[in-house]
Amino acid sequence: MTDSQRALVVGVDYGTLSGRAVVVRVHDGAELGTGVHEYPHAVMDRQLTTGPAWEAGTPVSLAPDWALQVPQDYVDVLKVAVPAAIAQAQADHGIDVADIIGIGTDFTACTMVPTTADGTPLCELDGLGDRPHAYVKLWRHHAAQGQADRINELAHSRGESWISRYGGLISSEWEFAKGLEILEEDREVYDRMDHWVEAADWIVWQLSGDYVRNACTAGYKGIYQDGQYPSEEFLSALNPDFGSFVSDKVEHTIGQLGAAAGRLSAEAAGWTGLPEGIAVAVGNVDAHVTAPAANAVEPGQMTAIMGTSTCHVMNGEELHSVPGMCGVVEGGIVDGLWGYEAGQSGVGDIFGWFVKSAVPPAYVEAAAAAGRSVHEHLTELARPQQIGEHGLIALDWHSGNRSVLVDHELSGVVVGQTLATTPEDTYRALLEATAFGTRTIVEAFQGSGVPVTELVVAGGLLKNTLLMQIYADVTRLPLSTIASDQGPALGSAIHAAVAAGAYPDVRAAAQVMGKRTVAAYLPIEENAVRYDALFAEYTALHDYFGRGANEVMHRLKDIRRAAKSAPASAAQTGSAHDGAEQTSSKTAGADA
Amino acid sequence: MTDSQRALVVGVDYGTLSGRAVVVRVHDGAELGTGVHEYPHAVMDRQLTTGPAWEAGTPVSLAPDWALQVPQDYVDVLKVAVPAAIAQAQADHGIDVADIIGIGTDFTACTMVPTTADGTPLCELDGLGDRPHAYVKLWRHHAAQGQADRINELAHSRGESWISRYGGLISSEWEFAKGLEILEEDREVYDRMDHWVEAADWIVWQLSGDYVRNACTAGYKGIYQDGQYPSEEFLSALNPDFGSFVSDKVEHTIGQLGAAAGRLSAEAAGWTGLPEGIAVAVGNVDAHVTAPAANAVEPGQMTAIMGTSTCHVMNGEELHSVPGMCGVVEGGIVDGLWGYEAGQSGVGDIFGWFVKSAVPPAYVEAAAAAGRSVHEHLTELARPQQIGEHGLIALDWHSGNRSVLVDHELSGVVVGQTLATTPEDTYRALLEATAFGTRTIVEAFQGSGVPVTELVVAGGLLKNTLLMQIYADVTRLPLSTIASDQGPALGSAIHAAVAAGAYPDVRAAAQVMGKRTVAAYLPIEENAVRYDALFAEYTALHDYFGRGANEVMHRLKDIRRAAKSAPASAAQTGSAHDGAEQTSSKTAGADA
Repeated sequence: MTDSQRALVVGVDYGTLSGRAVVVRVHDGAELGTGVHEYPHAVMDRQLTTGPAWEAGTPVSLAPDWALQVPQDYVDVLKVAVPAAIAQAQADHGIDVADIIGIGTDFTACTMVPTTADGTPLCELDGLGDRPHAYVKLWRHHAAQGQADRINELAHSRGESWISRYGGLISSEWEFAKGLEILEEDREVYDRMDHWVEAADWIVWQLSGDYVRNACTAGYKGIYQDGQYPSEEFLSALNPDFGSFVSDKVEHTIGQLGAAAGRLSAEAAGWTGLPEGIAVAVGNVDAHVTAPAANAVEPGQMTAIMGTSTCHVMNGEELHSVPGMCGVVEGGIVDGLWGYEAGQSGVGDIFGWFVKSAVPPAYVEAAAAAGRSVHEHLTELARPQQIGEHGLIALDWHSGNRSVLVDHELSGVVVGQTLATTPEDTYRALLEATAFGTRTIVEAFQGSGVPVTELVVAGGLLKNTLLMQIYADVTRLPLSTIASDQGPALGSAIHAAVAAGAYPDVRAAAQVMGKRTVAAYLPIEENAVRYDALFAEYTALHDYFGRGANEVMHRLKDIRRAAKSAPASAAQTGSAHDGAEQTSSKTAGADA
Repeated sequence: MTDSQRALVVGVDYGTLSGRAVVVRVHDGAELGTGVHEYPHAVMDRQLTTGPAWEAGTPVSLAPDWALQVPQDYVDVLKVAVPAAIAQAQADHGIDVADIIGIGTDFTACTMVPTTADGTPLCELDGLGDRPHAYVKLWRHHAAQGQADRINELAHSRGESWISRYGGLISSEWEFAKGLEILEEDREVYDRMDHWVEAADWIVWQLSGDYVRNACTAGYKGIYQDGQYPSEEFLSALNPDFGSFVSDKVEHTIGQLGAAAGRLSAEAAGWTGLPEGIAVAVGNVDAHVTAPAANAVEPGQMTAIMGTSTCHVMNGEELHSVPGMCGVVEGGIVDGLWGYEAGQSGVGDIFGWFVKSAVPPAYVEAAAAAGRSVHEHLTELARPQQIGEHGLIALDWHSGNRSVLVDHELSGVVVGQTLATTPEDTYRALLEATAFGTRTIVEAFQGSGVPVTELVVAGGLLKNTLLMQIYADVTRLPLSTIASDQGPALGSAIHAAVAAGAYPDVRAAAQVMGKRTVAAYLPIEENAVRYDALFAEYTALHDYFGRGANEVMHRLKDIRRAAKSAPASAAQTGSAHDGAEQTSSKTAGADA
């Protein structure tokens, strides 16, 4: 530990719509000031809202599934949010900027920036400002699904060893699918791209002047396993011109998490108001830095970041193949341990969809009259229910299933509705369904030799106390909650402290600077027993719909796609046809 | 046919909440006047709203599943609705009351009146006005489920031949379950009951002074098959004191449909303003009289009365055992043919439940702004969809399944919802699910040697043109619609005309007086092919959930019942437990 009680660090969390900075005291993790900056261009998913065409009033349109961002927005966070956090820490706590010894960052992933050799984003080059492929591809850019499908098919047919590290499926969100998409759709951009850079590393490059690939995204998103990327032979089989993709554009120095990527440059010191030369930590991913922020980096502590979706991260001592996990990467969360990742692709967004599209006016009015949100209202109505009283079982697959089935063609199910079923009944069944989904993941880990002993919840959903108790009861695990509102930014600050040498490693820093309420919710055995019965029903339906017994969901998606592309049928008007005759009593008689 | 072009008849339809009378011209079925009377006591399902205790301000409470009515309300219909119909016919068409030659009635079933030997309802006797079992038990009184379960178990264990005539299940709504309930719950009322009378026959008794059991309810609700009721031995095995139930309280002269039960009494002539001595037709059931009203009594014409639920009635030349039908009765619809009945226990009420409990404010507001009901609004939004575009399959079992599974413990299912699913998507999927339910019934008949060649729709749902086209496409049958707004009352008038001798039989009268729009909707082959694919999915789920592969719905109902009767658990509050400690960085360190 540093000898100074005054040492400070800054953590910056780059989310989907904004960046958030926090000033943290190194010796106890106290959060002294925060600042936020929303990206001026937010997410560009309908058209380019920058560039020459936009300025000329003829913006470039984007196809469905596209999602782009503007790199300069990220730099603006450094110029706005970091000084704001410092200013608040000065005003509230009288800090001295000279005590700040490091900065760490985390980012959404896989979010990719195509750059020149010196890191200039291609979208900033003359002549490329109207080229969508020259912009940042946000994690939720899903237009490379075709490329991802080909990667997966080829990997399985060739028996690539790395595919098992990803539960058998490389996502369309990741580096290789998105890279291949550029090659095949905008060759000029592809050819002018010297580096295909994770935004997590690009921002570190801006801060330090040094390009270092972080071990986390290299492993989880870049298919970097056991020191190797996919082979040139594999890549050439995807596309003859893709063979040198790794050597030309991807391969670069790997930095371990918690290490310093470099020192803060004079330019970045000017942007941020931070001292030049302080440590800049290797980049990281928002979900993964949350584990140390909750002081939950020891093997067995599964951190669930619960928001619109849930990301589960957990360290293990050993490498095991867990069916349906998103990935396992050595040093992927902290150096020296195997970092496991799993996920549920729909959680809070299922609750949000339900509230938006399936709650009647009387409930919305009653919620407003009670001065609470519809979510809170439904939760309070559902809270007194006995377990199973609603008579429902749901499958939480409205946004597909990430773990353990890894199947985005799955969809939601509700079984058991009657004419007496209320909105709070179904809402509670959906809450429970996501808890059953987490239990399925926990059991997959435990069944694969990776013990789970504590569930640590971070993210916006932890404020729903009913949901938390359900998760504790369903998983039979003590449930802890992160004790910071700035989870990822605090985690980045922890990395900064380690990078600055204040702690020997992230595990040690997390023990001091990370915060959680230990066992905030304990499983109640009586509840757990009742949920066992419902979980058995969930599992039966999970396996029936998800493991091939009835591929109805896949067929429904196929039918839906075919129907949407079919020509409109006049037949659908449903009005009585021209030949229908209104029988008088006489013609009816003739007919009968 | 009568030689008079002026001859008239009156039909009276006794529904669940009101009675409706119509004056009809015999020679062409023209409807000349109508009148309605709502029952003053409606349905008593929470407390007795009449009797000494009610008048004293201390009403008698009723348990859940009870549903009672007051017989005097039925008589009031004769005093109010019939004169109103006559008055309208006089005002609009100048009819002469002396031309009215008969009256016919239909009733909900199985609705039962306990009476003395002279037909006085027991609830009107001194000392019994506060005894719930002395009142009319409406069809939807479901408190005799325990008795029904015992009847079914015993019938199967003894191998009673009649049980196959009812798809293997006697309903709790029917005569024997409700009768046994009285014996076991109010012995005094049971002992004072001389007749256990279908309301359909009780009202005829009031009109004519003659008690005649109609062949329809005797067969469908009274287990009267091949001239016999269940044996004394069977009844004694249910309860030793129940052995003489048939001989003491049930057995009575059977009247065939279309026959005259008697002549209008002077007293009833006084109530109604009708000529004394005109023919009073044998009683009937609302669904069953609708078939002649639509001129759909020939073999192969399946009449679907589509409202909150759907009742399917159809004649056949031969007796066949159709799996899952509600019943088959010789002369049950018209004399001389086998009358088949099947049903879907939830149709319009599923759509109503959805509109009430699952449609968000924006839709309700948009419907109001467009000047249409929410049903109409959802229908118009769903109408342009291509078949299968919503990506959903639903099972229409929110109110259980009457045919062909005969299982009231089943419940609803929706498969395929995603974050993009809209209310109109699910609404359309529910419309389609009920059409698949009808096709399942049609196929059960066809597969059992009972051909179905035309689907004839009556009831409130026929005004939804999208729904009608879906039914035509899904069943691949020409779909006709009844061309009267007074379906059952017109049907009763037809029976009156036959009872009065104006036609030789109901088939002949229906050909002249019944009305339907023949083939108002024709199946469109392109649509039918697309629905075949969805129906295959429906059938797979139908059989999986309904035929024993996964008894999850039964278990969910069991769990629900157990949960509702369980003591409230403090554990459900979901607040952080007392022992939870908010770790500071130091205690978190100690824990980790």
